[in-house]
Amino acid sequence: MEIKVLQKVLAANDRVANENRSMFGSNKTLVINLMSSPGSGKTTLLDRTIDALKGEFKIAVIEGDIQTTMDAERLARHGVQIVQINTAPIGGDCHLDASMINSAAQDLSLDGLDIVFVENVGNLVCPAEFELGEDFKTVLLSVTEGEDKPLKYPLMFQVCNWAVVSKTDLLSVLDYDMDKMREHIKQVNPKLEVFELSARSGAGFDAWLNRIREAVRAKKNA
Amino acid sequence: MEIKVLQKVLAANDRVANENRSMFGSNKTLVINLMSSPGSGKTTLLDRTIDALKGEFKIAVIEGDIQTTMDAERLARHGVQIVQINTAPIGGDCHLDASMINSAAQDLSLDGLDIVFVENVGNLVCPAEFELGEDFKTVLLSVTEGEDKPLKYPLMFQVCNWAVVSKTDLLSVLDYDMDKMREHIKQVNPKLEVFELSARSGAGFDAWLNRIREAVRAKKNA
Repeated sequence: MEIKVLQKVLAANDRVANENRSMFGSNKTLVINLMSSPGSGKTTLLDRTIDALKGEFKIAVIEGDIQTTMDAERLARHGVQIVQINTAPIGGDCHLDASMINSAAQDLSLDGLDIVFVENVGNLVCPAEFELGEDFKTVLLSVTEGEDKPLKYPLMFQVCNWAVVSKTDLLSVLDYDMDKMREHIKQVNPKLEVFELSARSGAGFDAWLNRIREAVRAKKNA
Repeated sequence: MEIKVLQKVLAANDRVANENRSMFGSNKTLVINLMSSPGSGKTTLLDRTIDALKGEFKIAVIEGDIQTTMDAERLARHGVQIVQINTAPIGGDCHLDASMINSAAQDLSLDGLDIVFVENVGNLVCPAEFELGEDFKTVLLSVTEGEDKPLKYPLMFQVCNWAVVSKTDLLSVLDYDMDKMREHIKQVNPKLEVFELSARSGAGFDAWLNRIREAVRAKKNA
């Protein structure tokens, strides 16, 4: 019974996700969905990424939170378009869905827009189930969270295209086994492209930025 | 429509949670529900807590994960009773609910049992909505996750009795403002009892253990 309801919800969501995909696709706008647990560093990653790319590309952010506009305020200094989605007034959902993205897009000027970053609600479980119509699903995992997360939350790692292992500046003070993490990721999803970086120090950031540049180019030529 | 379904689910859950409360209550067993994002340190906290208290009390653990038995295996060395709940075969739920606890309790020997620790699925959102019939709801938040989480995920902090600010051994390498965190917690739930500790170094651990000892005594005398 409960599963039936869930399937209907997901089917309805997929329909709207396809509409989003057509809308962004006909505009050649690349859409990147960032997902992770609370506190893995999604906003800090975005902050540095936008800072590095805003001179090259026209960027917008769709910011998802249960409540507050704190993250949107942090990113406002870049002068890019930002739409905040708060899920608290619409049921307190622990994830974004396709219709929220569709509504948010109505508030964006799509003209010449190269990239939309979607910052999902902090949650390593539920957002994995909801297609938004994005080009790349990205999971962040900070090194402080341990190496076992791909095995314990496999769906997120299975649906994603990119994984960002964040906060690598803290490696020297942690008992963290990066090889084990890589092995766990490979076990769950061998196709996942992995970026190990620190948004604080900038280490590993170039590979991440270049991958985004390549994806923008591919989208323009699609 | 969707909200109606949710209310029915929650009402059914509350009924079973009350049954659990009676069952554990008549047995004078203290039940502590540990909730947090993935990687905040629930298992590490439990590991050190059980190690310190297993000589004084008869302890059991109900271990919740979407899949894997990795956490249960980590705790097995203490020789306490452990029941693993994997939610993947029953829909992949991102939280434990009262009926899962009720089923798990059937596999526990309650005779003389002083404490049941429940380690919930790693998720700072959904587990907050489900009563399990516990005495104390505890939220863990590691200092690597930032000071803004109480404001962004307020329900979890509102429903909890205790908060554990974990991984304080990392404070020296982080830009973390503990006063701001305390202020945010106070804003969301002024009654929350806060424990700042490191399960790695042991700093702050005595206050946490003593609070549990006090709760066990209170339960025996209830």
